[in-house]
Amino acid sequence: MTTLSLIGIGTGNPDHVTLAAVRALNDADLILLPRKGEAKSDLVDLRRLLCQTLLREPEQAQIVEFDLPKRGEQGDYLGAVDEWHHAIAEVWASLMAHHLPEGGRVGLLIWGDPSLYDSSLRIAERLGAAGREVDVEVVPGITSLQVLTAEHRIPLNALAEPIQITTGRRLRERGWPSDAGTVAVMLDSGGAFTALPADDTYIWWGAYLGMEKQCLIKGWLSEVSDEIIQRRSSLREQHGWIMDIYLLAKQPLI
Amino acid sequence: MTTLSLIGIGTGNPDHVTLAAVRALNDADLILLPRKGEAKSDLVDLRRLLCQTLLREPEQAQIVEFDLPKRGEQGDYLGAVDEWHHAIAEVWASLMAHHLPEGGRVGLLIWGDPSLYDSSLRIAERLGAAGREVDVEVVPGITSLQVLTAEHRIPLNALAEPIQITTGRRLRERGWPSDAGTVAVMLDSGGAFTALPADDTYIWWGAYLGMEKQCLIKGWLSEVSDEIIQRRSSLREQHGWIMDIYLLAKQPLI
Ligand SMILES: C[S@@+](CC[C@H](N)C(=O)[O-])C[C@H]1O[C@@H](n2cnc3c(N)ncnc32)[C@H](O)[C@@H]1O
Ligand SMILES: C[S@@+](CC[C@H](N)C(=O)[O-])C[C@H]1O[C@@H](n2cnc3c(N)ncnc32)[C@H](O)[C@@H]1O
Repeated sequence: MTTLSLIGIGTGNPDHVTLAAVRALNDADLILLPRKGEAKSDLVDLRRLLCQTLLREPEQAQIVEFDLPKRGEQGDYLGAVDEWHHAIAEVWASLMAHHLPEGGRVGLLIWGDPSLYDSSLRIAERLGAAGREVDVEVVPGITSLQVLTAEHRIPLNALAEPIQITTGRRLRERGWPSDAGTVAVMLDSGGAFTALPADDTYIWWGAYLGMEKQCLIKGWLSEVSDEIIQRRSSLREQHGWIMDIYLLAKQPLI
Repeated sequence: MTTLSLIGIGTGNPDHVTLAAVRALNDADLILLPRKGEAKSDLVDLRRLLCQTLLREPEQAQIVEFDLPKRGEQGDYLGAVDEWHHAIAEVWASLMAHHLPEGGRVGLLIWGDPSLYDSSLRIAERLGAAGREVDVEVVPGITSLQVLTAEHRIPLNALAEPIQITTGRRLRERGWPSDAGTVAVMLDSGGAFTALPADDTYIWWGAYLGMEKQCLIKGWLSEVSDEIIQRRSSLREQHGWIMDIYLLAKQPLI
């Protein structure tokens, strides 16, 4: 039997790892570390460092790095994603066959929490078709959204109000969702908030949350919108990549 | 100077506590433990147990339990909440004055994550008016929603779709929010999902998540709605209290 443990590791601050995640890492017979291309090599370094820090016997652990297949650009979006997930499942399955032929515990480090805009559960679902039956186990981790609210010291919801979590693309297309006191935006390729009325929208923005280069900006969009766009592009240039997230409300939250 | 640390502790599973939370607990000169009335005394026990387990020197720690003031039933909802928050801020301030006259680090254990439908940040904001200036620090914790998705092994979002997090009351009043692939419901006094079309709605339900008495049910509402309502009421009777949460989608998520 093989158990695949999807281990939420937070977003870079090793102190945000849970005791359960530390245990799951140490219990793994095989740890798979995806590489995601040059620009984000910081993130692979971070995962390596996390393993070194949290493993009781790092030299004993079987840590295997692998390159993520690239997503096809052709065809419809959902079709391309589906194919891509299959391709990743096959890579996982063959790594398990090679490094853990008799079965055992496989640990996969997941950025943030495995539930939030992450494909690992959907990929794991395809392992059967890729020739490897596994039991899946999920270890929750602190999300980037929680680090955003913690660092800004704000609640996620306006008092007793609903929260919408959405993507930059969706915010651009549809504007403020009809029934939400606050809107959290992830996966924005930059400046989707400019689709909203700048005078009536307050933003709490954060990039590289949980890391040393963390950067926070907040204020009315009319005052900070340009600053965020400029800072984002200069940080991105400086580091070669950026991940940012923000919360929006129609008024300050506390 | 006084620093108030709002420490997210997850929802009952001590393994869901982060390393940062363990450190914050151990660094506190004073730990405040709210009691919330008889029925939920399990939860106070859990907090006590957590302190005993995670403190390196539990006998040295200054742990002070206190009764939460009750919320007024009169007047408008927001006004009553505001008054209640003021009353709690005064209790916190006087406990700090009594047990930490020279200042220091105060730790407050927060169920789940301090950002999610929790009042502590809003109460802390009122400490100044209650005569005690403090620096606030937030330590993120695993939310009940993350334990729900982890235990059911599901993502929170449908592929690339927005997520709505809402309350039972709001779901009853407004039905399915217009722009959401999935809807997470908290603070439901019971069965708000009956406001939705039973044939087209899939539910992943969980109660007492992270605790020994955890209970999970999933399926199309047409098949499990009655079962959830009955189970909820019998569990509530058996234990004297219940906390439950669920995720809804128009189709299975993986
Ligand atoms: C594919 S999603 C994965 C989210 C992750 N599972 C989580 O729980 O945070 C990637 C998006 O998460 C957000 N994100 C992840 N890490 C971040 C960080 N350290 N700082 C800011 N945003 C981050 C960004 O919006 C980014 O586009
Ligand atoms: C006042 S809110 C606090 C939420 C908390 N801050 C969190 O991060 O989960 C209380 C609601 O959270 C949910 N909840 C909290 N703990 C739970 C648990 N252990 N199992 C199921 N639901 C829980 C329920 O919906 C409950 O009505």
